Amino acid sequence: MTERNEAATIADIRSAAQRLRGVAVRPPLLESPFLNRVAGRRVLVKAECLQRTGSFKFRGAWSAVSALPPTTRAGGVIAFSSGNHAQALALTASLHGIPALIVMPRDAPAVKRANTAAYGAEVVTYDRATESREELGVRLGRERGLTLIRPYDEPMVIAGQGTVGLEIAGQAREAGVARDAELLCCCGGGGLTSGVALALEAEAPGMKVRTVEPEGYDDTARSLVEGAAVVNAPAAPTVCDAIATPTPGELTFPILKRLCGRGIVVTDDEARRAMSAAFTRLRIVLEPGGAVALAAALYHCDELSGNAVVVVASGGNVDEDTFTDALSRFGNEG
Amino acid sequence: MTERNEAATIADIRSAAQRLRGVAVRPPLLESPFLNRVAGRRVLVKAECLQRTGSFKFRGAWSAVSALPPTTRAGGVIAFSSGNHAQALALTASLHGIPALIVMPRDAPAVKRANTAAYGAEVVTYDRATESREELGVRLGRERGLTLIRPYDEPMVIAGQGTVGLEIAGQAREAGVARDAELLCCCGGGGLTSGVALALEAEAPGMKVRTVEPEGYDDTARSLVEGAAVVNAPAAPTVCDAIATPTPGELTFPILKRLCGRGIVVTDDEARRAMSAAFTRLRIVLEPGGAVALAAALYHCDELSGNAVVVVASGGNVDEDTFTDALSRFGNEG
Repeated sequence: MTERNEAATIADIRSAAQRLRGVAVRPPLLESPFLNRVAGRRVLVKAECLQRTGSFKFRGAWSAVSALPPTTRAGGVIAFSSGNHAQALALTASLHGIPALIVMPRDAPAVKRANTAAYGAEVVTYDRATESREELGVRLGRERGLTLIRPYDEPMVIAGQGTVGLEIAGQAREAGVARDAELLCCCGGGGLTSGVALALEAEAPGMKVRTVEPEGYDDTARSLVEGAAVVNAPAAPTVCDAIATPTPGELTFPILKRLCGRGIVVTDDEARRAMSAAFTRLRIVLEPGGAVALAAALYHCDELSGNAVVVVASGGNVDEDTFTDALSRFGNEG
Repeated sequence: MTERNEAATIADIRSAAQRLRGVAVRPPLLESPFLNRVAGRRVLVKAECLQRTGSFKFRGAWSAVSALPPTTRAGGVIAFSSGNHAQALALTASLHGIPALIVMPRDAPAVKRANTAAYGAEVVTYDRATESREELGVRLGRERGLTLIRPYDEPMVIAGQGTVGLEIAGQAREAGVARDAELLCCCGGGGLTSGVALALEAEAPGMKVRTVEPEGYDDTARSLVEGAAVVNAPAAPTVCDAIATPTPGELTFPILKRLCGRGIVVTDDEARRAMSAAFTRLRIVLEPGGAVALAAALYHCDELSGNAVVVVASGGNVDEDTFTDALSRFGNEG
């Protein structure tokens, strides 16, 4: 076997799965004959919106924190995030009984600050215009002895997200689709996709992984074509805020480049339409960024091959206005 | 052991679990620190809205159809229902490759007819004012050699619903709450509650089962007090249509009477508020009748005892208007 020098290995993912046993939810693969009909093939949805804190991010946060040496861990952790990683790290730290400090922009939505605080973290805000979050974070981290946990460019985070792939490999075998299916993964910085791709390489090598991104934020799709990481040009805001990253991660991209097929790009309206379909047919709540892979499965059928597709529905932290807006636009499709 | 002569036994439930293996979804128990805080104890939610066709009813339908002698089964099945049992039986029959005929009132919502037909059943409608569905059903069943599958007063249906209880017993042990928890179950005709109560009697005898019903349709709660089945007086319609039954079942009530604690009654607004909480905190879609047990856990804390409560969230077949109405009334509670 070639020495690859990638950020994480299948052994790391298996160890993370051990640490997550009895802690993380193991969401089922959901299927609906109605969605199969739309897609023209079987569609199996890994409902990570059911994960603790509402997204797969809990796996990576728990994996990273539980892998720290005990004395380091006891000092506490810090993250820059206003989203799903922040909530995941806050709950993880609280369950470990250690302090967590989350650095958020002052203009982050109040509900995100409130949720992160309610999971037990201290929230420190900064002014995007006048302060550097890195400077603030590094200073606070050093002063207080906190360990920085990055959202995706962190080997033990990638390993934790990879446990989604380990579970899918087993569940796809049980469902009889492991040999002839593609796997679609919502892709931001690439932590989830890279971990899942490593897991499937070992456990379900017949399943090709494809990234899915929102229009205007298709850095990974373009980077995969170029063979090197490219950066998004300034674009209109997307409703898929959870995965609107500027460029693939340094640790994640080499794994994506080696293992992933061509990326797929969907529109915001396709993401909303998939949210509505997931509501009606699967009875799960998806946030826009968590619905893009399902959108690709349903509305980009001609870019897929095989008799089945497995979709990671990566998160469900969405406010009621965004959700009801999606239902009101597409809720009458049935 | 006393000979009880009840409709189903723990052995029937275990056999049903064998028949359902690899066919039914095994929903996880979901938990949120936010809901625990509201309830003042741990709240673990068995998300049966994720079941095939969107409710636990699939278990009972599959259990009953798969238990029929092959030649009988091949002749097909019939049900009177416009709701979750109809869809469950339609999909079950389709997966078995046998005909299903569903008798529905002509004024049933178009979407219910369409869904039932889309799952593969033939839908026959009757006029509530001028026709008897029993007469029509019996005639059609006899003419075509179809076997009637009742929604709850059917031993193999009760056994199938009881598999929810078997799973909960194992999952509650893993979560560390099997000794000191009550179990709350949405209750219509009592098929689910009686099956779950039988399963827990055998597998988690420390867990007391309590029924939850909507105001005006509290026949089971009152019957449990009386010690004999009573019938609801005419009441205003409830948004919890799935469980608005007139009186407990003949086969189910003796089991409820022997095994269940005092019933709990919730308002329609409490059910809507629980739908909104399940959306925000668990990322699942519940229909009103599927949310009453969660409503009891969250808003009737003083009627409960113990450090934990397990809630069966029984179904999620709800139209977008009813759902967004619940969110708009209670979505800002956070």
